[in-house]
Amino acid sequence: MPVNQRPQVVILGGGFGGLYAVQSLKYVPVDVILIDRRNFHLFQPLLYQVATGWLSPANIASTLRIVLRAQKNARILLAEATDIDVNNRHVILNIGKIPYDTLIVATGSRHHYFGNDQWESLAPGLKTIEDAIEIRRRIFLSFEAAEREVSAQRSPGQLTFIIIGGGPTGVELAGAVADIVNDTLTNDFRRINQSDVQILLVEAADRILTTYPVELAKKAESFLNQAGVSVKGSSTVTAIDESGVSIKYGEVIERIPCRTVLWAAGVCASFLGTVLTRQTGAKLDRSGRLLVEPDLSLRGHPEIFVIGDLANYLHQTGHPLPGIAPVAMQQGRYVARLLSRRIAGKTTIPFHYKDRGNMAIVGRGTAVADLRGIHITGFWAWLAWLFVHLINLVVFENRVLVLIQWGWYYFRRDRAARLITGDRYTR
Amino acid sequence: MPVNQRPQVVILGGGFGGLYAVQSLKYVPVDVILIDRRNFHLFQPLLYQVATGWLSPANIASTLRIVLRAQKNARILLAEATDIDVNNRHVILNIGKIPYDTLIVATGSRHHYFGNDQWESLAPGLKTIEDAIEIRRRIFLSFEAAEREVSAQRSPGQLTFIIIGGGPTGVELAGAVADIVNDTLTNDFRRINQSDVQILLVEAADRILTTYPVELAKKAESFLNQAGVSVKGSSTVTAIDESGVSIKYGEVIERIPCRTVLWAAGVCASFLGTVLTRQTGAKLDRSGRLLVEPDLSLRGHPEIFVIGDLANYLHQTGHPLPGIAPVAMQQGRYVARLLSRRIAGKTTIPFHYKDRGNMAIVGRGTAVADLRGIHITGFWAWLAWLFVHLINLVVFENRVLVLIQWGWYYFRRDRAARLITGDRYTR
Repeated sequence: MPVNQRPQVVILGGGFGGLYAVQSLKYVPVDVILIDRRNFHLFQPLLYQVATGWLSPANIASTLRIVLRAQKNARILLAEATDIDVNNRHVILNIGKIPYDTLIVATGSRHHYFGNDQWESLAPGLKTIEDAIEIRRRIFLSFEAAEREVSAQRSPGQLTFIIIGGGPTGVELAGAVADIVNDTLTNDFRRINQSDVQILLVEAADRILTTYPVELAKKAESFLNQAGVSVKGSSTVTAIDESGVSIKYGEVIERIPCRTVLWAAGVCASFLGTVLTRQTGAKLDRSGRLLVEPDLSLRGHPEIFVIGDLANYLHQTGHPLPGIAPVAMQQGRYVARLLSRRIAGKTTIPFHYKDRGNMAIVGRGTAVADLRGIHITGFWAWLAWLFVHLINLVVFENRVLVLIQWGWYYFRRDRAARLITGDRYTR
Repeated sequence: MPVNQRPQVVILGGGFGGLYAVQSLKYVPVDVILIDRRNFHLFQPLLYQVATGWLSPANIASTLRIVLRAQKNARILLAEATDIDVNNRHVILNIGKIPYDTLIVATGSRHHYFGNDQWESLAPGLKTIEDAIEIRRRIFLSFEAAEREVSAQRSPGQLTFIIIGGGPTGVELAGAVADIVNDTLTNDFRRINQSDVQILLVEAADRILTTYPVELAKKAESFLNQAGVSVKGSSTVTAIDESGVSIKYGEVIERIPCRTVLWAAGVCASFLGTVLTRQTGAKLDRSGRLLVEPDLSLRGHPEIFVIGDLANYLHQTGHPLPGIAPVAMQQGRYVARLLSRRIAGKTTIPFHYKDRGNMAIVGRGTAVADLRGIHITGFWAWLAWLFVHLINLVVFENRVLVLIQWGWYYFRRDRAARLITGDRYTR
């Protein structure tokens, strides 16, 4: 690498935090290098719609090179960070190493099986495009396999879907599977009755959507029940295998035959948290997130910032901020502005998350929203959810394509992207 | 299976031949069972646009259950045919067996490496969605890998693309790779110059597009040259490995370093041809196709029809009909009508292919078309190509989505679907 006149800002991860940091550095006199393993930014809030055959992967993925095409001070490197050398200010990549003056780590989180890693192949989680395609394959293959036999001859649990974890992702997945059953089964599958299908949403806490007000969580649960989803609160999963799931409620363990299990129960921060802890002494929380300073840097390392799901920022509320896109986006923008002010020799103020509200979609035509104390539920919350997510899609073309497909699905109830692809597409 | 009152027509394969046969049987008093390994009909003529990051897989795939939703006399079974028992009139599937009164075999063809099966992983062909995603991954990963290094340090052949086979698919792929280079390289990749890239189209015959009039083939070659593709006629590939390709021209063998090789050279009919030969004595041609009777049945087996790429129909011109969608579609419709007339006790006439012309796309804004002797080249041929392919997309939603993406690409030159996905997405 040639020696630069301008400070070199290396950003690890092109998710919401990393991408917004790059874009906010556009007019700052620095050279930016964005490093990601993938060549696209993924709009994760819509990933469950890929997993349930509503949208195509490309509709929610924006090629980083297209997004940043006009930004002259940014370069993109498709590579994987394997280590960080804090003393020499180098990031170690699978393809070499790269020096930084400032480092922004925004590598996010991955789903986590609480020590039961063998569950991963049995109950896939939803973090990547590949995850979504695999979940899509499993859901639609279940219906295809069931259609081959009349009810009496089906293997037990063939049409049982268990979603583990009652946060927004679990609620979205459960609601979307119920929508598939209600919308398409009677037309498309002639040997399956709605009553053959069982959808369970399992949550360890006593209610779903624990980060939402109780009233909204109750409303979401009643929407789910109406759509045909049974919610099992205060229940933990004790075993998963090919033929079913064991669920513990109080002292009782129930065995439920099930062929399709989806995991939405826990996430764990990127392994770079551990790397940085070892080198800087920064503390990790239980979920593997790094405790950051009021300006999102690591203690004693004003040149290293950690943002998004990998950061635990306690200075605003005393609790971690939620692991959602708006937090990451605001943190990315904040760090860019801070660097700009630092270069200009100006003082900086601590990060402050501006909470504009929380929304979870429950199914076709229903959502719950908590807009700073104002609660909206049902159709209008759903429309608001669609609108907010649509305008936040990074590429205009995707907004058009997603809007058309949403409209199409809403009126026709067709899920056009329900392809079964991959290596095993028949049984 | 319960005994039916109405004759049971089993159709193997939901491609152009099989799907059009099912749809044309809608008002015929038979029960139709369509068996396919995949849950969608694939619009193969646009597959190269998925491979080159222009369209999404779902845009050119139509879920069979949606397409046939309103057809009461048709059932769909997601299964793989492994054998046929002609004497007992059963198809053996991976999930059991199914009886037929009439059998229509439309299982198509697969690419073929002329005895060099070890080339498959080195030079993928383009027949399935998975093939297209793999080719897309290889093309865009080549550019990403090249962007990491300045020219002098790049491994040899990093930006060399060799497309083997100068038929329509090879021409489309070569033209599309050239478009990628011309449209996006200078904007999106800052260390790659157009002059670093080499695109070769290798053809064993002395010219490309051998099924087209010489004049059109020459025109296509000159379009390709202008776009930056070198056409190597009268050349055969003698070796492919990780680092390059050996090409024989006359007595000279040239070794070309190359990291991305695509195969568009040959197809071989489905293995069910061999199964049927063994059981009925029907003859196979060199490409594994079954020689069929004037009514597309097998000799001595008026209850078995073979259509599409698996059939070799010599009765019209003395030569095989081309392996293209219009032939398969017309054959599917023909067999449906023949069955209808047979049931009604009417006489039948031999199949006759109505040739409406041939079109090949060469690149963005250029194509060649032979419309029954009228030759069109360039922009108008390209528009005609787009129009014909757009109206033939089975699902209306896909027509809308494809049209938008074509328009987008034409004016913006963005290939929005250029995701690198799969297991290996960095190096």
